[in-house]
Amino acid sequence: MAEHTVTFDVVAGPVVVQTGTLLTEAARLAAVEISQPCGGQGRCGRCMVKVDDGDIRRRSTLRLTSEDVDKGYALACQSVIEADVAVHIPAQEKIERRLSTDRVVAKVAVPAGYDYLRDQSVRRVNLTLKPPSMKDQTDDWSRLLNAIRRQTDINLDGRPAVRVSLPLLQTVGRVVRQEAWHVTAFLDVESWNGHDQARLVDLRPGHTPEDEPLLGLAIDIGTTTVTVWLVDLVSGDVQAQAAEYNGQITRGEDVISRIIYASKSKHGAEEMQRLVLETINQVIDRACMRAKVKPEEIVKAVVAGNSTMLHLLLALPAESIRLMPFVTSVNYTPVMPARDIGRPGLRLNIHPEATVDCLPGVASYVGADITAGVLSSGLDDSELVSLFLDIGTNGETVLGSNEWLVTCACSAGPAFEGAGVLHGMRATRGAIEEVWINGQTFEPTYRVIGEVKPRGFCGSGLISLLAELFLNGVLDKGGNFNDSLPTSRVRLGDHGLEYVVVRGDESHNGRDIAITRVDVDNLVRAKAAIYAGFTVLAKGVGFPLDGVEQILIGGAFGKYINVEKAVEIGLLPDMPWERFQFLGNTSVMGAYLALLDRAKRARIQEIAGRMTYIELSADNSFYDAFTSALFLPHTDLEEFPSVVAELEQIASQRDASSSGPLKVE
Amino acid sequence: MAEHTVTFDVVAGPVVVQTGTLLTEAARLAAVEISQPCGGQGRCGRCMVKVDDGDIRRRSTLRLTSEDVDKGYALACQSVIEADVAVHIPAQEKIERRLSTDRVVAKVAVPAGYDYLRDQSVRRVNLTLKPPSMKDQTDDWSRLLNAIRRQTDINLDGRPAVRVSLPLLQTVGRVVRQEAWHVTAFLDVESWNGHDQARLVDLRPGHTPEDEPLLGLAIDIGTTTVTVWLVDLVSGDVQAQAAEYNGQITRGEDVISRIIYASKSKHGAEEMQRLVLETINQVIDRACMRAKVKPEEIVKAVVAGNSTMLHLLLALPAESIRLMPFVTSVNYTPVMPARDIGRPGLRLNIHPEATVDCLPGVASYVGADITAGVLSSGLDDSELVSLFLDIGTNGETVLGSNEWLVTCACSAGPAFEGAGVLHGMRATRGAIEEVWINGQTFEPTYRVIGEVKPRGFCGSGLISLLAELFLNGVLDKGGNFNDSLPTSRVRLGDHGLEYVVVRGDESHNGRDIAITRVDVDNLVRAKAAIYAGFTVLAKGVGFPLDGVEQILIGGAFGKYINVEKAVEIGLLPDMPWERFQFLGNTSVMGAYLALLDRAKRARIQEIAGRMTYIELSADNSFYDAFTSALFLPHTDLEEFPSVVAELEQIASQRDASSSGPLKVE
Repeated sequence: MAEHTVTFDVVAGPVVVQTGTLLTEAARLAAVEISQPCGGQGRCGRCMVKVDDGDIRRRSTLRLTSEDVDKGYALACQSVIEADVAVHIPAQEKIERRLSTDRVVAKVAVPAGYDYLRDQSVRRVNLTLKPPSMKDQTDDWSRLLNAIRRQTDINLDGRPAVRVSLPLLQTVGRVVRQEAWHVTAFLDVESWNGHDQARLVDLRPGHTPEDEPLLGLAIDIGTTTVTVWLVDLVSGDVQAQAAEYNGQITRGEDVISRIIYASKSKHGAEEMQRLVLETINQVIDRACMRAKVKPEEIVKAVVAGNSTMLHLLLALPAESIRLMPFVTSVNYTPVMPARDIGRPGLRLNIHPEATVDCLPGVASYVGADITAGVLSSGLDDSELVSLFLDIGTNGETVLGSNEWLVTCACSAGPAFEGAGVLHGMRATRGAIEEVWINGQTFEPTYRVIGEVKPRGFCGSGLISLLAELFLNGVLDKGGNFNDSLPTSRVRLGDHGLEYVVVRGDESHNGRDIAITRVDVDNLVRAKAAIYAGFTVLAKGVGFPLDGVEQILIGGAFGKYINVEKAVEIGLLPDMPWERFQFLGNTSVMGAYLALLDRAKRARIQEIAGRMTYIELSADNSFYDAFTSALFLPHTDLEEFPSVVAELEQIASQRDASSSGPLKVE
Repeated sequence: MAEHTVTFDVVAGPVVVQTGTLLTEAARLAAVEISQPCGGQGRCGRCMVKVDDGDIRRRSTLRLTSEDVDKGYALACQSVIEADVAVHIPAQEKIERRLSTDRVVAKVAVPAGYDYLRDQSVRRVNLTLKPPSMKDQTDDWSRLLNAIRRQTDINLDGRPAVRVSLPLLQTVGRVVRQEAWHVTAFLDVESWNGHDQARLVDLRPGHTPEDEPLLGLAIDIGTTTVTVWLVDLVSGDVQAQAAEYNGQITRGEDVISRIIYASKSKHGAEEMQRLVLETINQVIDRACMRAKVKPEEIVKAVVAGNSTMLHLLLALPAESIRLMPFVTSVNYTPVMPARDIGRPGLRLNIHPEATVDCLPGVASYVGADITAGVLSSGLDDSELVSLFLDIGTNGETVLGSNEWLVTCACSAGPAFEGAGVLHGMRATRGAIEEVWINGQTFEPTYRVIGEVKPRGFCGSGLISLLAELFLNGVLDKGGNFNDSLPTSRVRLGDHGLEYVVVRGDESHNGRDIAITRVDVDNLVRAKAAIYAGFTVLAKGVGFPLDGVEQILIGGAFGKYINVEKAVEIGLLPDMPWERFQFLGNTSVMGAYLALLDRAKRARIQEIAGRMTYIELSADNSFYDAFTSALFLPHTDLEEFPSVVAELEQIASQRDASSSGPLKVE
């Protein structure tokens, strides 16, 4: 088979590949980083490169203009190498930190009445062993077990008395002798069916002062952000928090793209596991530095995250999540030692024997982030009927109370996370996070994260922009641009009509930043999916939506949503504002509570078991509800009385200003 | 620090080492194999090399004659490099196979009434899973568990229902889909405290015919020989047997030497584990080839061996076994999956999830080989008071019945295994295994293994030679050579008086093969230790030795001992021959029984708990008994009436032949 050289301008020397190789694969071989937010499906257009020399076959030119193609631009994930080529790699989008969860430490209240000996599972015990003698030749391990039996109140009636891994057992002989038969044992004690089962997690020479922190970790693996809370299990205090963008983002913005990437080659799943582990280890390091401790002192971790995130972390096959009939490999993974997670050379960087407890999920698209979220929201324990919403790619929704729980997920897509939108981006420096449009001039004003020249729109900016365009008549109910307005902001672009928010002279790279008709359609589909989800859920159980007494919004993104704007576009139901509560990262909070309290951990298991999962893709009424919601704010305006009132007010203002002297600028 | 080059004639190119490096370390770096049967203590003399060029500092010249030193010979383990040297490595002793246990397959009877579903722990179940649908989105793992619940009689009341490792869980999604949701599950089910605990060991696509073998393995790790029996757990049949010399022999003939080697450097323990794993994997391969199966089909292994062998296999620190007060790291190691045993690149080569059950030992020198041996000998279940002897380096002894059990070990040393004896060797080709001495001419005749020119003496040859020398008056009671006999066979050698069995013209290398005064002393000390062991044990419990109704001799070496000769030198007690039973490898037999029968496995645990261990080194009466036994056959001839009778008969024959015509040649 013919071979060709591929030369990248960012690295020295070419690589040689066979005819038919994808350019992204050649880049991987050359260790050239190319972002593929859609997972290499050719959908997002972010892997655009420029072919400087030689020819390449373009399987797709979606998101490229004909002018782009003429200039040599190509999508790396859609480019097939059939000749020698030289390729220019543009500067890749860097994830700049603007994670409020990393900068601003949320004050976390330790659960009232917390008692670490009673509530959580890790016991640290100082033991003094009787040294062996010719009269007492008991082996080291039995000697240790005898000390645990006599010097603690741990009930060792099970068999084996204490489980231990071989690597840890290999250290026992040395450790017990190091400080004259004084040791500190770390045991994870689980009680089930009336039996204690203890596992030795660590054995350290000498005694440990009682007031020294005993470290546990709550981890939330979000599709976008990985968050850890470092916890002193003795006091229950969160000693440090840290968060970082999930390193998998470069291989897919949403879970579907990542599953595709993980499944398409033997390297894929390995790379996905590596990327998220690198992120997790990085935030663990950061949290440990802040608390002045070492990662290997962490003896227990509880992990929350959606089903795909947990599958990719554990290198479980995720393909079936994406394909009909949408099942996971496992919803409830067994507890395992940290040393099992990863591969040679890259392990979860806490104590290798630390218990890692991945929380249970319900289904492919209702994962442990939601069960943990429901626990921490208190929904399952309240007499009030509440709606729990995680507004994100999967739009997970839970409706219920302490008596019943139903749940669904609707594939909203990543539009609100800035993907699938031409100038969409994550909420990092340069993102437009809020937009206002003047009702007379149709000129916009906007606020940018980080006080720099704008680069694009993040989710909250898109919601805000969409609401403003609609309220001011730039978009109609059906999402169509009105091109008869007296403004040059609405114009015909490569992708149809568009509205220009930022002109080239104000943008970071001299190019216009606009929202297109395609973008609007994507956003409307996303909000319609979420809205249809909870309405169908409510109808399915025969509960009137306006009877919902609380709307609990979880997820880090939820914190930035402006309720008013979200109601205006029909994303959130039109209800009194006081019913909305923004809870922040309910997933990491649930992991924290499970870490500190065996009863709450058991409760999450119970929540997962109690939830009735409604599969929307098998539900015709969902399709109807979705279609009805494909308007701004909705086909049925009766569901949005406050928006109707607002539209009427704007119309009367406009009438007033255009018919008389009372013009308001 | 100064560096020097070391050139070996057997490999290309020199290695560079620092001043003060041992020659054996330089050889390791150059990948030159040098046998060190005593573990590098300078005791055995087998690592002799010749310095061809340059000077080397000899820390010890034990076992070298002054002539040897003049010619440039040196002990590699005692040679310190302080200048550039060139070294000649003589051909190393090769272990040639003459393991009857490998060639002759012992016929093993399956225990009467064996029922694999009732008796042993591994269950192989064919399962048909209901495929998932949009109406049933149960995750793959729960689907599998449900099938186990519904389609088998395994009682899954425990939690977690079925334990599974992450690597195996990672395969579940693929395997269940491979043959249209038909799978074969392999479960190891343990029942303790009335609960079933099941662990998934393997999951294979498709159904498996009921008559296909279900493979288990019994392993005995002897200090000298590693033996495996490959077992079909369904029928209980031993499908193949294989044995091989333990590869650790080159690093120590006895357990003490090996512990020293394993403890003296960071490589030591690693190398010891590697050597025994290589041997085990080799015999597994051989057994599997004979049975036409693959090693990865083996789903359970039970391992017996002395405490040191199990420590070295599991890389547990063994140093404390050797040092006062002689304790192990662990007498009873937890059950573990095969994947835990070894290091990256070298694992126990059976199914990685296979249960590996190392049997429990009692003390540093009474290990799992003895508890397994006691079970298979039936001693613990008999009303007869029996003596169980494992004649080897450690001389383990058990005395008792179904009512009581006492045990001890006496450090006999490896003399009977051919080490610590100038021309000692293992029972391989060229070993003299039996000797007869003419009472008048004092000329020897002998039998050699493999019908080749003799190279040295193996253990049974040494016992035979010692008995003949004593009975014929060449040695007196105190082990002194009689140099006034009319024979040139007794002469003064480098190490004092010696008896030449083979003259140079008959030997394999032209050198004489003799037994020296030092050798005799070593052998007498070894037999005295064993004899003193069981006499002290009997006295300690107040049981008269002649009341012992059975003498059960275990260990592969036991099979070759001639009882008559062994009694003549005072190694075995002077009792009617019918009380002696030679049981062969009782250790592997015990492992086999434990593999097939959970009740017998529990019984070994009970035996280990029931045995009272007597520490002889803390016992003055042992020293007295040992001193009394340092004669041929013993100080107290009343304990050896048959030997006295024999000596009288020989004396009367000699008198008759020297005084008259009835000379018997």
